[in-house]
Amino acid sequence: MTDVNDAERRAWAYLAAVAEPPSASVIALVSAIGAVAAAAAVRDRKAPVGHLAALAATEARHATDTSVADLDTADRVGARLVTPDDEEWPGWSLSVLDRASTAARGGGPLALWVRGPGALSSLGDPAVALVGSRAASSYGEYVAGQFASGLAAHGRAVVSGGAYGIDGAAHRGSLAAGGLTVAVLACGVDRDYPTGHARLLHEIAARGLVVSEYAPGTTAAKHRFLTRNRLVAALSGATVVVEAGRRSGAANTAAWATRLGRPLGAVPGAVTSATSVGTHAMIADGQATLVADVDQVASLVVPDGEDTRGPAPIRDTDGLPPDQFRVIEALPARESLSIDEISFSAGIPVDAVRRALAALDVAGLVDEESGLWCLRR
Amino acid sequence: MTDVNDAERRAWAYLAAVAEPPSASVIALVSAIGAVAAAAAVRDRKAPVGHLAALAATEARHATDTSVADLDTADRVGARLVTPDDEEWPGWSLSVLDRASTAARGGGPLALWVRGPGALSSLGDPAVALVGSRAASSYGEYVAGQFASGLAAHGRAVVSGGAYGIDGAAHRGSLAAGGLTVAVLACGVDRDYPTGHARLLHEIAARGLVVSEYAPGTTAAKHRFLTRNRLVAALSGATVVVEAGRRSGAANTAAWATRLGRPLGAVPGAVTSATSVGTHAMIADGQATLVADVDQVASLVVPDGEDTRGPAPIRDTDGLPPDQFRVIEALPARESLSIDEISFSAGIPVDAVRRALAALDVAGLVDEESGLWCLRR
Repeated sequence: MTDVNDAERRAWAYLAAVAEPPSASVIALVSAIGAVAAAAAVRDRKAPVGHLAALAATEARHATDTSVADLDTADRVGARLVTPDDEEWPGWSLSVLDRASTAARGGGPLALWVRGPGALSSLGDPAVALVGSRAASSYGEYVAGQFASGLAAHGRAVVSGGAYGIDGAAHRGSLAAGGLTVAVLACGVDRDYPTGHARLLHEIAARGLVVSEYAPGTTAAKHRFLTRNRLVAALSGATVVVEAGRRSGAANTAAWATRLGRPLGAVPGAVTSATSVGTHAMIADGQATLVADVDQVASLVVPDGEDTRGPAPIRDTDGLPPDQFRVIEALPARESLSIDEISFSAGIPVDAVRRALAALDVAGLVDEESGLWCLRR
Repeated sequence: MTDVNDAERRAWAYLAAVAEPPSASVIALVSAIGAVAAAAAVRDRKAPVGHLAALAATEARHATDTSVADLDTADRVGARLVTPDDEEWPGWSLSVLDRASTAARGGGPLALWVRGPGALSSLGDPAVALVGSRAASSYGEYVAGQFASGLAAHGRAVVSGGAYGIDGAAHRGSLAAGGLTVAVLACGVDRDYPTGHARLLHEIAARGLVVSEYAPGTTAAKHRFLTRNRLVAALSGATVVVEAGRRSGAANTAAWATRLGRPLGAVPGAVTSATSVGTHAMIADGQATLVADVDQVASLVVPDGEDTRGPAPIRDTDGLPPDQFRVIEALPARESLSIDEISFSAGIPVDAVRRALAALDVAGLVDEESGLWCLRR
C-alpha cells in the first residue's frame, strides 16, 4: 500500500514539523533531493545551492526532532502521516495549490496527518465543502445539516473545518446519513478542538477522516485557520458557504475556492438576518452561485451529469460577471493602470472598478503594485 | 395644463373602451387621423386603407358608447382620463412598450384612467415597482414594507398592483413613510378590488395614484392582470420581486421588466420557504440581481449616482449570463436551429439550452417557429 519506509516517514515527519506550513522552500528541497536527504540537510544546516530558503524556514525549529514522538502519538490515536509518495495522497486535488503558491499562505502541504478509516484519495471531485459562521443561526445549521445529509445520499463526501456552527452541523448531517465526512483542522489531529466537539471529532475519526498538516500536539492559532482554509477548498470539488456574516472566516475559504478555480455556491437567507449578509454579498457580486437545494449544490461540481473540472482549473475570463469582464478588457497586455484610468477606459464607476479588481485579485487574474493594476502574467 | 378639449376627451374615452387593451391597431389609427376622427371611423365602421385591423378590434363593442358615463363616473370618484396629448402623459416611460408591441399583450396603452393627486409624469426613472405573491409570508410582507418605506425616504415612488400580500405591504410601507405610491389596477379605477383593500385603495387615491387602462366599471379578469403587469414594469425605473413561489404572477411582471430592458431585482429568503423559490430561481438564472437592502434597490435604478437609462432600453448581449451568451453566439445570422443543434454548437446541455432560450425569448432576443430558433431581427 505504500512505498515509504520507516526512515523515510521519520524524515517526512521531521520536515513537516520543523517548518510552519505552508513551506514552499522545504517542499522544493524535498523535490530536489528526496525526504531523507532533505531532513539531513535541514538538520545539518547544509542545503544545496538554490535551497537556502529551506534553511531559513527551519531556522527556529530544526534542532528539535519530534518525528518519532509525533509518529507514536499519531499511531496511538489511529492516525497516519500521508506523504506525496503514498498512494493515498490526493495529488490531483492538491495540484491546484501549486499554481497558487506565489500567494500568501499558498502552496500545497508538505504532508498530511490523517486520522480515520477513509482514504484521502477517495474524496475526488464530488466532495463538497460546506462552511460558514461559527455563530450560525438555527436556520443555517438546519440547512447545513440537510445539505450534508442530501450530499451523503448522493454518495458525496462533505468537507468542513470541525468548528462550531455550520461546520459542525455539516459534519453531523453527513454522519447521520451514513456519509463520508472530512474535518480539516488547524491543530494536530490528536487534539479535541474545539473542546465541545470532542465527541463529534471522535465520531468523524471513527467513520470519516480528520486531516491536518500540523503535527500532533500543535495548538490551533489564528494564522493556522487561514492556512487550513486553503486545504478545505482544495480537497473539495466545490465549496458552499451556508451562512456568513459581514466579516467571516468563511469568506476566506470562499476566496480560496475562487482563487483555485473551484465552483463556489452560497445559500441565501432572510435579508433581515446578519448571518446571511456575507452570502448575499457573494451572490450579488457574482462571486458565488445561489444554491437553494442539494441538487443545485451537487450540480456545482457535476452540472447536468458532466464533469466540469478541466485540465486548467484557474478560470479564464469567459464566465466573469460583466463589470469584472470590462475591467479585464480595459487592462492593456503590458501596462499598468490606475483605478481612475481603468474607470475611464472601462466606462464604469470607480467604486465598481474597485470591487471588480478585488474580485479579480482573489481570482488570481490581476496584480497590483503601488496602486497600479495589471493583468497577472 | 391640457391641450385636450371635451369632444376630444370623449373620443379618447370611447376609443379606450371599445377595444380591449392593448390595442395597437386603434393606437395606430389615432396616430394617423387623430382621436376624434378615429372615434368617428370606428363608430361608422369606415377606416382608412391600412387600418382595417382597428375595425376588427372594435367589432364587438363599437355600438356601445360609454364615454360620457365613463367620464362622469371618473369625475365622481376624482379620476381623470390622461391621454398622450396631456402634459401628464408619461411618454418616456411608456415608449419602451412600443418596441415590445409585436409581443403578445405588448404595446403601450391608448390612454390611462388616473385617480389621485399625484402627476403620472412625476414618477420618472426613480420609481421602483415592488411586486410579489399574494400568498406572501410575514417575512415577505415585512421586507416589502421596509423597502417601500426606505424608498419613500429616498423620495422615490413605489409602484405595485394593489393586490393582497406583497403589493399591499409595499403600498402601505410607502404611505406610512409619506411617500408617493401608485397602484396599477386590472379593473376600473372606481372599483374596490380586491374588496379587502377598499380602504387601502381609497388611501392611495387620496395621497398617491390609482391607475388603469380599463374604463371605470371594468371588472378584473385573469388576462387583464397579465396585461396590467406590463404597465407596472413600464412605469417603474426598476422592478423588484420581493417574494414569488414556483409559479407566480410576479414572474410575469419580472419578465416584462427584463423584456423592457429595465433592471430587475429579487429578494432572497430562506431556502426552506416556498415563497422564495421564484426569487431564488431568478437570481440563480441571472435574470435578477440579488437585493438585500433598500440601498441596493435604489442603486438598481441609479447605480453609484449615475443614470443607467440610455437611449436604447432593449438590452444587448453584453450583460448576458454565460449560457445565454453562448446560445446567442451559437445562432447563425440567418438560420434557424433546433435545440439539439444549438446544444451541440454551444457545447452546453439541452436542458441548459432550453432554459437559456426561454430567458432570451423573454428578453426579446430570439424567436421560435415550429421548434426551430433564430435570432430576432
